[in-house]
Amino acid sequence: MEPPPPAVAAVVASPEPEEGDLVTNKRVILKRYVTGCPRVEDMEVVSGTARLAVTPGSPAVVVKNLYLSCDTYMRTRMRRRAAPSFVPNYVPGEVLENCAVSKVVASGHPDFKPGDLLWGVTGWEEYTLITDPRFCHKISYPEFPLSYYTGVLGVPGITAYAGLFQVAKAKKGEYVFVSAASGAVGQIVGQLAKLIGCYVVGSAGSDEKVNLLKNKLGYHDAFNYKKELDLNAALKRCFPDGIDVYFENVGGAMLDAVLRNMRQYGRIAVCGQVSQYNLERPDGAPDLFLLVAKSLRMEGFLASDYAGGYRRFEEEMARYLREGKVVYVEDVAEGIEAAPAALVGLFAGRNVGKQVVALARE
Amino acid sequence: MEPPPPAVAAVVASPEPEEGDLVTNKRVILKRYVTGCPRVEDMEVVSGTARLAVTPGSPAVVVKNLYLSCDTYMRTRMRRRAAPSFVPNYVPGEVLENCAVSKVVASGHPDFKPGDLLWGVTGWEEYTLITDPRFCHKISYPEFPLSYYTGVLGVPGITAYAGLFQVAKAKKGEYVFVSAASGAVGQIVGQLAKLIGCYVVGSAGSDEKVNLLKNKLGYHDAFNYKKELDLNAALKRCFPDGIDVYFENVGGAMLDAVLRNMRQYGRIAVCGQVSQYNLERPDGAPDLFLLVAKSLRMEGFLASDYAGGYRRFEEEMARYLREGKVVYVEDVAEGIEAAPAALVGLFAGRNVGKQVVALARE
Repeated sequence: MEPPPPAVAAVVASPEPEEGDLVTNKRVILKRYVTGCPRVEDMEVVSGTARLAVTPGSPAVVVKNLYLSCDTYMRTRMRRRAAPSFVPNYVPGEVLENCAVSKVVASGHPDFKPGDLLWGVTGWEEYTLITDPRFCHKISYPEFPLSYYTGVLGVPGITAYAGLFQVAKAKKGEYVFVSAASGAVGQIVGQLAKLIGCYVVGSAGSDEKVNLLKNKLGYHDAFNYKKELDLNAALKRCFPDGIDVYFENVGGAMLDAVLRNMRQYGRIAVCGQVSQYNLERPDGAPDLFLLVAKSLRMEGFLASDYAGGYRRFEEEMARYLREGKVVYVEDVAEGIEAAPAALVGLFAGRNVGKQVVALARE
Repeated sequence: MEPPPPAVAAVVASPEPEEGDLVTNKRVILKRYVTGCPRVEDMEVVSGTARLAVTPGSPAVVVKNLYLSCDTYMRTRMRRRAAPSFVPNYVPGEVLENCAVSKVVASGHPDFKPGDLLWGVTGWEEYTLITDPRFCHKISYPEFPLSYYTGVLGVPGITAYAGLFQVAKAKKGEYVFVSAASGAVGQIVGQLAKLIGCYVVGSAGSDEKVNLLKNKLGYHDAFNYKKELDLNAALKRCFPDGIDVYFENVGGAMLDAVLRNMRQYGRIAVCGQVSQYNLERPDGAPDLFLLVAKSLRMEGFLASDYAGGYRRFEEEMARYLREGKVVYVEDVAEGIEAAPAALVGLFAGRNVGKQVVALARE
């Protein structure tokens, strides 16, 4: 899960300008609040229009959205009950919003001009009027696939980096476990941990993903959690001396098993808990007394907590990518009509690597 | 809960010396592994003998135990299944061990001489041969009630101090919540937090304890959790702006309610989870995604992690006691025969303040 920067609420809410080209604008709206596993029918692709201009004097920008990011945390915004506070819930009948890569088509803001490539919070639609582009970042390295700015060079990247180094404070020689290890964040965590000399094991939900972890993403070992009868035994097999750092993406039974296998003074960076998002009440009751018994630290975080370090991170990660020290695997769906299914597919583990929806290449 | 320093395993296991006075030695042994709530019948007070001398050349000491400490964490050592690693389980037929205040009656160790007052890990018995007195501390301030070294000047004291300041990093002006707030550790946490200018609320299990919290221990507010239909509502009432620091002693439903009421960047110092110790499987499934949503840190710790700071702590706490800035409430049971019931009583909340068993005054 890769939470966006503090939400730009209602990015499309301001009055439309009266000038400028009017174009059709397909949009993904939330049709109804979701209970249980999200379904394609919970969303709807509708047609609207967008004006490709900003009201004179306003600091807004209009962007053409190129690549939408599909993130499991979006599920937590689809429920009726209070959202867990860092972002507002989606509203039935209104467009979804999340991070994306976009191109500026009109701008009243001094920092942005038509043609600029950005990433930041926008709508799940073809064009978005961003009234407050404070959370838009210009893309510094357009030589990489632009979609990487929904992933390794965007929120998932800084999430992996900050979670591993600033939250968990992983050090050379430590034993690191990553769940959802081939996902948007996990695949980066594993590679970064290996780069600094950790022993890294990942779990994933298919043999294909396990193969990817071992043979492309450089994990020392990996297992398919769906094929393990006993997660505790699987972790003991992979970590006979225990785990120093757990990068937590899933929660539930896996977290319970991990706690039993943590070493004294271990750290758990809590990035997400995808196994819990479709439940009305959390399941699993991990033995949290183990936090005491082994002096463990468990710390949740959001990428936005580390936004101040983004440019330094971007530069470092761009270098790793250029040098081939980090690779990135994406799963790209084509066209806005495919977006609801791409999002829903995350919960069945259908994506292999970071799930992106390509609306346009430029 | 106040875990002792790393256990001195089998403090009474070494061969007895052949010289020296032989005296009767009543001891509390574990009769059988415990399931569910511990009962007096799970322990037995038996009579043995002790030799009041050490084998020449050995660095052992023999102590007369004056005040035994009753601590809820002892329950976690009474089960058959693997202990949660920081201390070994008790063994049926063998004497219990825990922290106590003792007087040296014979010594082969250069640092200790007969008459010295100590606190540290010893047996639940009248006399103990401590083969390795590494975890014995000389008492610097015998002008206070000696029993305070099982409490405010001993492990509960440094647990409260380290948990509040080093783990939770409480700061002036913050909102602090303490569960089991009149217990051995809780009563100190609340007073220390108030001393540095926090707003402090405690929960306890009887109106008598709530009264104690408000009128003797200086808590700004307190509630009887057994009388609250909805812990979440109780916390919202006491903390309309949320909680910055939670000093966690109980776990279960309280932890769940606290997580909902934590403020962004809040910290939870996990000292114990007494509601869980009598269960075979943990109950309650707190919504740990709230750690992510609010960037919360939850950190377990043991007093032994902070043992290096003990002397400085002892000096500071002695000053607070002398100046009346910290007061301490104890519940003293008399005689070793009363020890099993005193320990069991902790789980019914029968104690008011720190539960101690006085075996002898000097």
